[in-house]
Amino acid sequence: MSEPNVPLLSDLLERAVVPEGATDRRAFLARASALSLAIPAVGAALTACSPRGGGGADSARGGGGASGAQAAGGAASLRHLNSNSRLDTAVLKGEPHGNSSATADATRGASSAVFRRFDPTLPPLPADGRLQLHWHARELPVRISDDTVVAAWTFEGDIPGPIVHCRVGDTVEFTLTNDALVPHSMDFHAAQIDPKAAFRSVTKGQSVTFTFKPKWAGAFMYHCGTAPVLMHIGSGMYGALIVSPREPLPAAKEFVLVQSEFYLEEPQNGIRAFDYSKMLATMPDFVAFNGRPNQYIKEPIRVKRGDRVRFWIVDAGPTHPCHFHVVGEQFDTVYLGAPPATPIRGVQTFTVPAGGGMCFELLCDVAGEFPFVNHGFGHGQKGAIGFLVVEP
Amino acid sequence: MSEPNVPLLSDLLERAVVPEGATDRRAFLARASALSLAIPAVGAALTACSPRGGGGADSARGGGGASGAQAAGGAASLRHLNSNSRLDTAVLKGEPHGNSSATADATRGASSAVFRRFDPTLPPLPADGRLQLHWHARELPVRISDDTVVAAWTFEGDIPGPIVHCRVGDTVEFTLTNDALVPHSMDFHAAQIDPKAAFRSVTKGQSVTFTFKPKWAGAFMYHCGTAPVLMHIGSGMYGALIVSPREPLPAAKEFVLVQSEFYLEEPQNGIRAFDYSKMLATMPDFVAFNGRPNQYIKEPIRVKRGDRVRFWIVDAGPTHPCHFHVVGEQFDTVYLGAPPATPIRGVQTFTVPAGGGMCFELLCDVAGEFPFVNHGFGHGQKGAIGFLVVEP
Amino acid sequence: MSEPNVPLLSDLLERAVVPEGATDRRAFLARASALSLAIPAVGAALTACSPRGGGGADSARGGGGASGAQAAGGAASLRHLNSNSRLDTAVLKGEPHGNSSATADATRGASSAVFRRFDPTLPPLPADGRLQLHWHARELPVRISDDTVVAAWTFEGDIPGPIVHCRVGDTVEFTLTNDALVPHSMDFHAAQIDPKAAFRSVTKGQSVTFTFKPKWAGAFMYHCGTAPVLMHIGSGMYGALIVSPREPLPAAKEFVLVQSEFYLEEPQNGIRAFDYSKMLATMPDFVAFNGRPNQYIKEPIRVKRGDRVRFWIVDAGPTHPCHFHVVGEQFDTVYLGAPPATPIRGVQTFTVPAGGGMCFELLCDVAGEFPFVNHGFGHGQKGAIGFLVVEP
Repeated sequence: MSEPNVPLLSDLLERAVVPEGATDRRAFLARASALSLAIPAVGAALTACSPRGGGGADSARGGGGASGAQAAGGAASLRHLNSNSRLDTAVLKGEPHGNSSATADATRGASSAVFRRFDPTLPPLPADGRLQLHWHARELPVRISDDTVVAAWTFEGDIPGPIVHCRVGDTVEFTLTNDALVPHSMDFHAAQIDPKAAFRSVTKGQSVTFTFKPKWAGAFMYHCGTAPVLMHIGSGMYGALIVSPREPLPAAKEFVLVQSEFYLEEPQNGIRAFDYSKMLATMPDFVAFNGRPNQYIKEPIRVKRGDRVRFWIVDAGPTHPCHFHVVGEQFDTVYLGAPPATPIRGVQTFTVPAGGGMCFELLCDVAGEFPFVNHGFGHGQKGAIGFLVVEP
Repeated sequence: MSEPNVPLLSDLLERAVVPEGATDRRAFLARASALSLAIPAVGAALTACSPRGGGGADSARGGGGASGAQAAGGAASLRHLNSNSRLDTAVLKGEPHGNSSATADATRGASSAVFRRFDPTLPPLPADGRLQLHWHARELPVRISDDTVVAAWTFEGDIPGPIVHCRVGDTVEFTLTNDALVPHSMDFHAAQIDPKAAFRSVTKGQSVTFTFKPKWAGAFMYHCGTAPVLMHIGSGMYGALIVSPREPLPAAKEFVLVQSEFYLEEPQNGIRAFDYSKMLATMPDFVAFNGRPNQYIKEPIRVKRGDRVRFWIVDAGPTHPCHFHVVGEQFDTVYLGAPPATPIRGVQTFTVPAGGGMCFELLCDVAGEFPFVNHGFGHGQKGAIGFLVVEP
Repeated sequence: MSEPNVPLLSDLLERAVVPEGATDRRAFLARASALSLAIPAVGAALTACSPRGGGGADSARGGGGASGAQAAGGAASLRHLNSNSRLDTAVLKGEPHGNSSATADATRGASSAVFRRFDPTLPPLPADGRLQLHWHARELPVRISDDTVVAAWTFEGDIPGPIVHCRVGDTVEFTLTNDALVPHSMDFHAAQIDPKAAFRSVTKGQSVTFTFKPKWAGAFMYHCGTAPVLMHIGSGMYGALIVSPREPLPAAKEFVLVQSEFYLEEPQNGIRAFDYSKMLATMPDFVAFNGRPNQYIKEPIRVKRGDRVRFWIVDAGPTHPCHFHVVGEQFDTVYLGAPPATPIRGVQTFTVPAGGGMCFELLCDVAGEFPFVNHGFGHGQKGAIGFLVVEP
């Protein structure tokens, strides 16, 4: 399962402080990539695993820094997370995407990116209890609204990645191949597995394969776990694996909504890159269900009167919770743990944590047009609003 | 139920992109008003439904924009939510309250606004199972502390609006008459009803009437749902409808606390207007229970030793949750769903989501002075602190 | 239990507005100290209970003010919380730590502060059902990472304070002696007791003693409750009292993690003071488990394959929740109320509120290296990441 030329996290933990005298840049970068989530500050450097990375030593670029919100310019330093600042600046010198998702691949051909509605329908279960997935990490422009194209890091070319569906005990066989210059990885919240091996970062052209059997039902997030994980989630690498219980839940129209935040640079050449400093400052430009702000206002989700509707909500964050609410309705059931266990009844609004998921049900016995929203409106107003139309 | 001269949301959904060539301004404004929650950017324009709205085309005012927190000046644009920026600027041109609650009505007579404690006592149930409410949307100055008067948008002249109380299955007959120049509406979280019709916006002099029977017990928020909903909640239009179960809960002293945030401009002529840019930046000036920061410090809530106390907490937001806690006590019961279902026991602090409500109980068997707080103190310190005095 | 020369909160409530003509500065300060949590603005002044406090009247220092996030300089005023601004400015005039934790004690000897890992192991139960604690409030430098020393306000010299453990119904006999110039106090969330007396502030050399019997099991926060409580929690005065149920929970390896935020000034003489303005602006520089960002990356928590692991999580805040998650695992049990009641099963991520605590269990039947994180990564990335190593 492990790639011979990428050291494992465990190999590197004892070297967490990268030796000051390291002169083999390639070796350092390989190590930095593998360190991944483990050492955030070194992880920040791994975006330098690109041929474009230079070798100078004078310029402090670095990540946004926690004080981004206070700084007018916003470009603070991540050095407080790593005493070895000389290496940080060396690695990031001349690197155009140390703080930004604007890689060459992510920005090429922005004007031809086409807007399309993201289908929120829960896909059917696999017939044979096996979900065989071979996905590619790709960096490319994604149009999230008529006038906004983002420089995205993705699974399979879209934000969010594919919605997938299986049952408790099914077998998920997963392979990730990295088509991008930046190292990426895959972390399934539904998997019980050693992340050191299964969720390790792979570099361009490499693949990682693992297999797991989900043990619990629920709406599980998946995401790239490569460090800094905030940057990789924040740039588009997340999605939902819905795990249904073995005993079917009551018949329902089932939909999946992945809430996420967009922290964007100003447009350059018709495209907006994701901005790590703004992610650290936690003030998003947009918040969306399934990757496009307000998409289900123009093209609502439609059901019939009498339908039971089941929303599987994943909050990909990276930071803010989703206070999920349907205007004009109440949820008759929200499952606190793995469905069908621990239901609560008669709920107006419930919070899905960042990095979590929950299952919400309502009985649509009144026809009408019902906005579904993140009722934390300081952020919800930025695009986390859609329509559920109940036809008579 | 519908007003003849205000189109319904459903009529307008297919015209979500307002035609570029629209020349009938009055028709556009009527449409914008009705679009309300559905199209936030157009909704922002609906504050222009005032005689003072001009017709020029050069000035970009608009809402605060999501990047308000980063921008020094704070006045970013909402245009990213609507490609039709020409209309936005035309509509908002010369409009003094595109980004502010400072309407003529809301600011007139500020110096004579009188401070009064907001009574937190749960009102009695209606005798006959009918709650008949005819409320007025009013814009007027409200004094929230000795030295602060705000330019408020209200239900019935106060922040929060009236606290009301009924039981599951009772009939709530509600009429809203709009006395203000800005369109307003009413969204009861306890109602299962088509919001397109019942929660539609009405303009000055118009009324909307609807009837509903709450299906679940709980602490339900109500609020103005006119777009941008963040602005209307943020400017004071919210309150609580407490729905008791048919089978009475254990005898208790019952109180209602509505937590909300205040985002204010600097004082002008002795009054502070609500500031939409600051709402988007999510950093409140004050956080209060029942509309006045720290009011229950000076004038505590008083009970007797041995009393069971039941707090019905509504978090009106618009953005931040309430981490509710009573210093020196624990809640013996918090109801996760509709009371009396799904109680949890022995809780120090529980989170009420923005746009949600919960029911907390404690047995006051120790005399003393117990602060109740939002234990998220970065915001709680801004006024969400009061005293529960348990007399011997 | 009460100290003769410190008035009780109840004595002072009727004088909540400090008389304009008060000339006895010492009496005012004593009163301000005792007012504590009750009157935040006056409470802010109590940091002036230091010999270094001057007596001038022209300079507005004060706390950060709620608009700190918007203000470039950050030093807004707390005057909106207290109409009596003359006293505020008089008291704070010339006071170096009105807005900062940088007292003389807290900054002396910074360079010799030694970094050490904070042991997360749950301590054993007291043999005889009695927990006898005599703690000291101390201000001193604490090294939280190789390159960062903070000017800390502490219980017993560390951040967090000692982790303590007892069972429901045990007797906790507690004494706090204040060794510091600033008044401090102790608020145990596990105590049902009159906070006016038990949690009152004591000045240098004074002590307060109280006894309580925890009524519910859980992960309970304790903290200094002296006003402004945000400043005292934010400067390091918090910890965890774990209360086990009388009937033992399933055998497990048990750990305690206290998440908290660090809001720091720029370094001066090799030390960073806590900054009240930044606390109000809610954008932390670091977020840590047990007081040191990323400490359990370098020195992980270690268990054996087959172990049940129980995490008792306290979120000390002061502001942000902890979206607790273990990469590569799910919690088979999260207790919503007092353990063992109301378990939920199969949870990827659950939110611990600021000022709250929860109990999370997982069965480690896979060997590997599992990061545990705050999955709200905008803040989690600032240090709330560690490793759980499951040895084969």
